[in-house]
Amino acid sequence: MTTPLRLGIAGLGTVGVGVVRIVQTHRALLAARCGRPVEITAVSARSRGRNRGVDISGYAWEDDPVALARRDDVDLVVELMGGEDGPALALTRAAIDAGKDIVTANKALLAIHGQEIAEAAESAGVALRFEAAVAGGIPVIKALTEGLAGNAITRVMGVMNGTCNYILTRMEDAGLPYDTVFDEAAQLGYLEADPTLDVGGIDAAHKLTLLAAIAFGTRPVFDAVDIEGIERISIDDIRHAADLGLRIKLLGVARMTGRGLEQSMSPCLVPADSPLGQLKGGTNMVVLEGDSVGQIVLRGAGAGEGPTASAVMGDVADIARGLRIPAFGQAAAGLATVTPARATAAKPFYLRMTLLDRPGALARIAAALGDAGVSIDRMRQYSHEGTDAPVIIVTHKTTRDAIDHALGLFGGTGVLVGDPVALAIESV
Amino acid sequence: MTTPLRLGIAGLGTVGVGVVRIVQTHRALLAARCGRPVEITAVSARSRGRNRGVDISGYAWEDDPVALARRDDVDLVVELMGGEDGPALALTRAAIDAGKDIVTANKALLAIHGQEIAEAAESAGVALRFEAAVAGGIPVIKALTEGLAGNAITRVMGVMNGTCNYILTRMEDAGLPYDTVFDEAAQLGYLEADPTLDVGGIDAAHKLTLLAAIAFGTRPVFDAVDIEGIERISIDDIRHAADLGLRIKLLGVARMTGRGLEQSMSPCLVPADSPLGQLKGGTNMVVLEGDSVGQIVLRGAGAGEGPTASAVMGDVADIARGLRIPAFGQAAAGLATVTPARATAAKPFYLRMTLLDRPGALARIAAALGDAGVSIDRMRQYSHEGTDAPVIIVTHKTTRDAIDHALGLFGGTGVLVGDPVALAIESV
Repeated sequence: MTTPLRLGIAGLGTVGVGVVRIVQTHRALLAARCGRPVEITAVSARSRGRNRGVDISGYAWEDDPVALARRDDVDLVVELMGGEDGPALALTRAAIDAGKDIVTANKALLAIHGQEIAEAAESAGVALRFEAAVAGGIPVIKALTEGLAGNAITRVMGVMNGTCNYILTRMEDAGLPYDTVFDEAAQLGYLEADPTLDVGGIDAAHKLTLLAAIAFGTRPVFDAVDIEGIERISIDDIRHAADLGLRIKLLGVARMTGRGLEQSMSPCLVPADSPLGQLKGGTNMVVLEGDSVGQIVLRGAGAGEGPTASAVMGDVADIARGLRIPAFGQAAAGLATVTPARATAAKPFYLRMTLLDRPGALARIAAALGDAGVSIDRMRQYSHEGTDAPVIIVTHKTTRDAIDHALGLFGGTGVLVGDPVALAIESV
Repeated sequence: MTTPLRLGIAGLGTVGVGVVRIVQTHRALLAARCGRPVEITAVSARSRGRNRGVDISGYAWEDDPVALARRDDVDLVVELMGGEDGPALALTRAAIDAGKDIVTANKALLAIHGQEIAEAAESAGVALRFEAAVAGGIPVIKALTEGLAGNAITRVMGVMNGTCNYILTRMEDAGLPYDTVFDEAAQLGYLEADPTLDVGGIDAAHKLTLLAAIAFGTRPVFDAVDIEGIERISIDDIRHAADLGLRIKLLGVARMTGRGLEQSMSPCLVPADSPLGQLKGGTNMVVLEGDSVGQIVLRGAGAGEGPTASAVMGDVADIARGLRIPAFGQAAAGLATVTPARATAAKPFYLRMTLLDRPGALARIAAALGDAGVSIDRMRQYSHEGTDAPVIIVTHKTTRDAIDHALGLFGGTGVLVGDPVALAIESV
């Protein structure tokens, strides 16, 4: 095993440059740990001339990533281009056809095409690894697939989009409204070109899809995730949550029940003093629960050059060391078809609404809740100016279906101003 | 790879029974994940007849664990007997001689004999894995050895003895003195037969030794760890720490510097609202810091049947899937010899002492600190009855050597009652 492992890197953005930097600076360390040298032989990116702060002159250049995958001097293709279709998909297919192992950071590609790609990789006998696709530098795919292999996984949860967590914590810390902080995040370059991927919860849902497939041995089905973004979270929600000893997080939850696989990515309230509640800024946290291990909590940087490149290099080292396991932890052809299920676990909900300030308004809302079988734990009406009254209700444990039923009944009361916000309160 | 992997389990205490339970209840899950069946063929323990709550009648029995290791129907020996010498060492050597892979939970054995065992295992071409030896169910060995393989590790820290953490949190929560809580822990069966292993910091130092060897590519040298137990922590220390917004934890810290490898296991103060500060009861936490990944925090149950058996089965699954890497992450023969170094990083210290209540007493202590080059950040004298005055001093950042020098000078002041307590305040 002293034959070098030769990497071809497609994509030289932040993460690609980070990978080049690690390979160049940790040559001896990698050789000692992998039992063989790890080298870069070829790279591909959009612009050859761009100054990236690393020297790539010693590597062959390919304008076409597909050509990179077909090179005889490339053993392993590192796909860091991103995008759920187009060049990344073409490159991945080409690498599999050429019998090259693949390491990717592309959550969208795998959440959408993961089943097809994993089956093709296994048929071709190539390794496919994607630690960097979920929760940046946290080795969570490894923990779930390998470390907890002896467990029936009971629940997976996580805060896995650093941008959303930055926005929510910044709103609370600075007392600023959503729009202002959103603009700040855009100016800081924290948002994807299509910001809906971040604030709409889609990026985080891609990641949850991959974790759920591994955890429950099911096919990755992105469309089966109930997704709600953070766009409707107001500074008032943040403040009310704080009053209740809670914090709002864009939280992914995946659970297997008798009815099927529940997967949701939505803003939830968690205790302010819980590990999830204390998560600040771009940090990610994943909670894994298994029947033997109990609860494991993993925390670390969810993005950025170093952490993401670290995850890529963990996968590269595994392949260099000869580890070859199926992408989702078991043979892709044997993954179960998902029956998507709505969350049935009873939990308390937080409701925020604005009522017309007229006699009996609150009574009508309370009656609608009662008709839907939802009972009230706490209610606060906040002092206000003008004719509209902000009201917060915390329910006793109930189901999402019952809450949706109540929200439907609210429409008939004639006392609501605008749409109410309903967020689950998760015990973590 | 559909040949079954056949386990021989030596030791059927809590963890051994947990492993039997997982193999029996998760037959299909393990086969799907490992790509081959995992079976138990033989077991060995002290008493054959004892009722353990699991059915072992289908397995061959060996009174002698060495005979177990030599059986033709055993591919992998699971060593769960414990003890740094004696039968566990004999079994491990026999397994290596017989060409059998080994999974062990034995931190003492590896901290003392790890270098010899790892070299022998590599020469014989057998796998040696020990996830269960450190931090129970947390897959920290895997994270460090594999997930962070692309990082130069800069620091490893951890709370890794659940019993000590139980004692310290119980003292704070119940306001009880050390001796009372120690007796409670003994009655609950939380303490090792030799309680010094727990409260003396030795068990946790064994674990730190193993993490440091992997992190820094050095030979495991248990004797190079500076160890201080929690026996001298009083309820007053707990209360004073709380007043300062801090909590006391038995914290392991390993750091490589230009002077050598610093390894300490000692009671330290950490911010009460930090992840380490919030750790309650038997839960463990390990903090891994790398040059690319930044800080990764891992949290989970540090002991118990399920969590420890989960860690054993993660190793078993790795071997079943064909993963074979050196025990300490790189060839044992190439591990560097350790130059033990005293901690040189400057940090604030907490000093608790009792002074004779006489004019000038405090001035003499302050002068001794000044003579040692230690400056005072905060000082509190607590109200008291009688002639002795409890005093707390928090220093500005200084070194352990300077503190030890000051403690030496205190002796000449003639105003001290008993020995002072000096604890580092760690930023985490």
